[in-house]
Amino acid sequence: MAEIVEGYDDIKIATVCSHSSLQIFHGARKEGFGTLGIAIGSPPRFYDAFPRGKPDEYIILDDYTGILDIADDLIEANAVLIPHGSFVEYLGAKNVLRLGVPMFGNRRVLEWESDRRKQREWLTSAGVRMPSIIDNPKSIDRPVLVKYDGAKGGRGFFIAKDEWDFKIGIDPTQNYMIQEYVMGTRYYLHYFYSPISIEGYRLSKGSLQLLSMDRRDETNIDEIYKLGSMEDLKRLGIFPSFVVTGNVPVVLRESLLPMVFEMGERTVERSIELFGGLIGPFCLETIVTDKLDFVVFEISARIVAGTNPFIGGSPYAELIEPDLSTGIRIAREIRNAKGAGRLAEIIS
Amino acid sequence: MAEIVEGYDDIKIATVCSHSSLQIFHGARKEGFGTLGIAIGSPPRFYDAFPRGKPDEYIILDDYTGILDIADDLIEANAVLIPHGSFVEYLGAKNVLRLGVPMFGNRRVLEWESDRRKQREWLTSAGVRMPSIIDNPKSIDRPVLVKYDGAKGGRGFFIAKDEWDFKIGIDPTQNYMIQEYVMGTRYYLHYFYSPISIEGYRLSKGSLQLLSMDRRDETNIDEIYKLGSMEDLKRLGIFPSFVVTGNVPVVLRESLLPMVFEMGERTVERSIELFGGLIGPFCLETIVTDKLDFVVFEISARIVAGTNPFIGGSPYAELIEPDLSTGIRIAREIRNAKGAGRLAEIIS
Amino acid sequence: MAEIVEGYDDIKIATVCSHSSLQIFHGARKEGFGTLGIAIGSPPRFYDAFPRGKPDEYIILDDYTGILDIADDLIEANAVLIPHGSFVEYLGAKNVLRLGVPMFGNRRVLEWESDRRKQREWLTSAGVRMPSIIDNPKSIDRPVLVKYDGAKGGRGFFIAKDEWDFKIGIDPTQNYMIQEYVMGTRYYLHYFYSPISIEGYRLSKGSLQLLSMDRRDETNIDEIYKLGSMEDLKRLGIFPSFVVTGNVPVVLRESLLPMVFEMGERTVERSIELFGGLIGPFCLETIVTDKLDFVVFEISARIVAGTNPFIGGSPYAELIEPDLSTGIRIAREIRNAKGAGRLAEIIS
Repeated sequence: MAEIVEGYDDIKIATVCSHSSLQIFHGARKEGFGTLGIAIGSPPRFYDAFPRGKPDEYIILDDYTGILDIADDLIEANAVLIPHGSFVEYLGAKNVLRLGVPMFGNRRVLEWESDRRKQREWLTSAGVRMPSIIDNPKSIDRPVLVKYDGAKGGRGFFIAKDEWDFKIGIDPTQNYMIQEYVMGTRYYLHYFYSPISIEGYRLSKGSLQLLSMDRRDETNIDEIYKLGSMEDLKRLGIFPSFVVTGNVPVVLRESLLPMVFEMGERTVERSIELFGGLIGPFCLETIVTDKLDFVVFEISARIVAGTNPFIGGSPYAELIEPDLSTGIRIAREIRNAKGAGRLAEIIS
Repeated sequence: MAEIVEGYDDIKIATVCSHSSLQIFHGARKEGFGTLGIAIGSPPRFYDAFPRGKPDEYIILDDYTGILDIADDLIEANAVLIPHGSFVEYLGAKNVLRLGVPMFGNRRVLEWESDRRKQREWLTSAGVRMPSIIDNPKSIDRPVLVKYDGAKGGRGFFIAKDEWDFKIGIDPTQNYMIQEYVMGTRYYLHYFYSPISIEGYRLSKGSLQLLSMDRRDETNIDEIYKLGSMEDLKRLGIFPSFVVTGNVPVVLRESLLPMVFEMGERTVERSIELFGGLIGPFCLETIVTDKLDFVVFEISARIVAGTNPFIGGSPYAELIEPDLSTGIRIAREIRNAKGAGRLAEIIS
Repeated sequence: MAEIVEGYDDIKIATVCSHSSLQIFHGARKEGFGTLGIAIGSPPRFYDAFPRGKPDEYIILDDYTGILDIADDLIEANAVLIPHGSFVEYLGAKNVLRLGVPMFGNRRVLEWESDRRKQREWLTSAGVRMPSIIDNPKSIDRPVLVKYDGAKGGRGFFIAKDEWDFKIGIDPTQNYMIQEYVMGTRYYLHYFYSPISIEGYRLSKGSLQLLSMDRRDETNIDEIYKLGSMEDLKRLGIFPSFVVTGNVPVVLRESLLPMVFEMGERTVERSIELFGGLIGPFCLETIVTDKLDFVVFEISARIVAGTNPFIGGSPYAELIEPDLSTGIRIAREIRNAKGAGRLAEIIS
């Protein structure tokens, strides 16, 4: 794939028009790239309201899998695809793996990320703490989170305080996983790993940055307490849901930053051993307990929507380069790799 | 009124010193306008701490209605009034309608906004979903929000989970309205509609922008859960209140933005049919359910205080023009209309 | 101490590498000062990720009290120490008072701040409202907050709704203080008092600014409601904790700003009478009730970590000088005082 890109006259940054695409196009434009939007269904009128985040041109498809059929067109347009959460979710990991278009980052991360057991293996073998798994519902002796298989975007979870709660709540026809419910505040940490830059927090190869962090808004769990206690609401047939609707900017206690970088470092170093490395932006989704320990409940191995509050910069970016966003950083990485003749290390 | 403004030598931006006045003066100053602050009671010393938001000169009045008596002075000072929430609330819709001073926006919106039934007619006939109304307390079969007439600034609401809750909570001597309690996360969407610009999201006439969004802080409802469940607290005689005290910046899931613009578009187009159009900034106050539907519980037809976190720009503004605020956008609109000889379309 | 600084060739800004040190070094660098980081334990690698917040050089110590032994080295390095919360907490007020190195601000504030009774005396005699104190547990007739002596960083509190709750929760072997639990939204107000500047909100001597405000994230209290009501959780042996983990940016209703400045003014004026004045940044930690009254539960008499969301500016800073942070403001104050030959007024 890198060879294809090296044959391009002029790289164009392409992505699907959703999730964090405004930020990706904004960053590409700022770094001097042409941009190409892949829109599903209809031409996305709302982009007209955001001229600095609008792609130069569109391809309109009927559905996500249509991307598989236009691989040649994308290559002819000199496109480098930037994957994001919606892109991967709707196209599916398998299709992303076989898509014949140069893509930013290392696709092999998908094997390790999209399977919960492998993701856990990766992170725990890296020394990152995750919530413990409870194999037998009879051993529930503390609050737990029950996740149904294939739960997406925050649906399909429930919280049980004890075994009784679990029995009441469970749908036995579905596959589920029971994990320790870790209590604490949530921080979604937005890292960027570059295998080619030696500026920043040095790793065995390349370096790591922290660009920003957010907390997710989730409907209806974030507002349900206004109505009454969970117990009373359950009696009324009202249950909490965990659907992500937006993001709030946050910063973390500075004394926790060394741990943030150690977690990021171990995650990257282990990824290099396991599959050649997690390239570009990624997010550790963490809970900070009242012992000031981090527990990571998930990793997202690409740009997350939680970076969107920081399209114009963040308090952490201010300490690196004012106005730096994850979108700009991605485009910068492609530009730098091209300049250094090292596209093969960041494209797959 | 537009004729009066066209006779002005040099437009001066004027507003009452409260609510979002720092932002309004800051924007006016950035766009090169002189500024005039109308202060109630005493000269507002705290402005001295904010030199870039401080008006060039003040008029001090004893109370809000004093504005009615100084209409000629304001005209002589070449003032264009920028209405905001406190201005309209304390002067009163009727007084605003008869105030003989040029004002930014279309005052006729007040007829449709200040009467709850007409506001509902406007929005629902525009195809915007609002919480349903329950006429008879006996038909309460789900959580409801009970609003007393004339409730202002978040006081005078209560939440009832069922008919019993309603009976316990209601003050039968007051007029009230019962509406469905919609559960979900809240987003206050800050739009700007220009009838004279063709840049942005095009409407039948002019165009629409989204400049920012926030979530309101409300005392004591936001923190009451720390003390115990609503049920326990009620037994102790402690009841929730909903008084707005501040604002937190948020961003919305990008895939919801098309719906945001469709709602904004329908609201504006319908306003053009009903009363000649809602001009300038407005805010749809929304709840996003776990089906990812928007429910609008109110419209504010002018600059809202929720834009104040964004005096120096927002993630959305970054996609339009860095550092753009609603305050700057208002001043810009006046400047552009003046330059194009189209003040009559934005002044009333 | 001021004399020592006046003898310096070239002032260097020094602080302990934690809390708000990235911001302090960032500000110092922007104002043209050299910087010196005092690191405890090991050289702080994470600074490499933030080149604009990284000090020019480090001193590595085994523990905080090691600072006492290197006073001469710090003076030789032309250091002015900027105290922050971790610095004061870990070195201890008594050690800070006897540390023989020039320090920004008035150290005498520590006598009044570190003793809860004297802090209360200062603020209440300034006319600032604080939560009332309940001397006898038998007189608990409303929700209360019980604080154990020496509680730090948010540990060692509990909330009791009534006398029964208190009896269940109390550890009678510890010393405690019972104070009224004030319900409302929390705003941590970041002021800057300069005795030498006459720009801004004028006081009897010098002037006052408001640079930003935040709300603290606290684990686990902020997320515990998701699991059930406090009552149910207590039965399961799960108790709330109040450990600060980060900060969220907020803005306040503009009509409350006059009160914000009056509180700040009275606090400073009283400090001048009591101990020669609180110099530089300070934070009033407030609750806004549903009567829109402020209740101050604590003062921090130096830069707080809550300013960290605003390293690149804040909505309030935008009204003073774009991109102004508390870190920049501190460095600016030192530069201005030096230029005016008035270092003695801001150094102790």
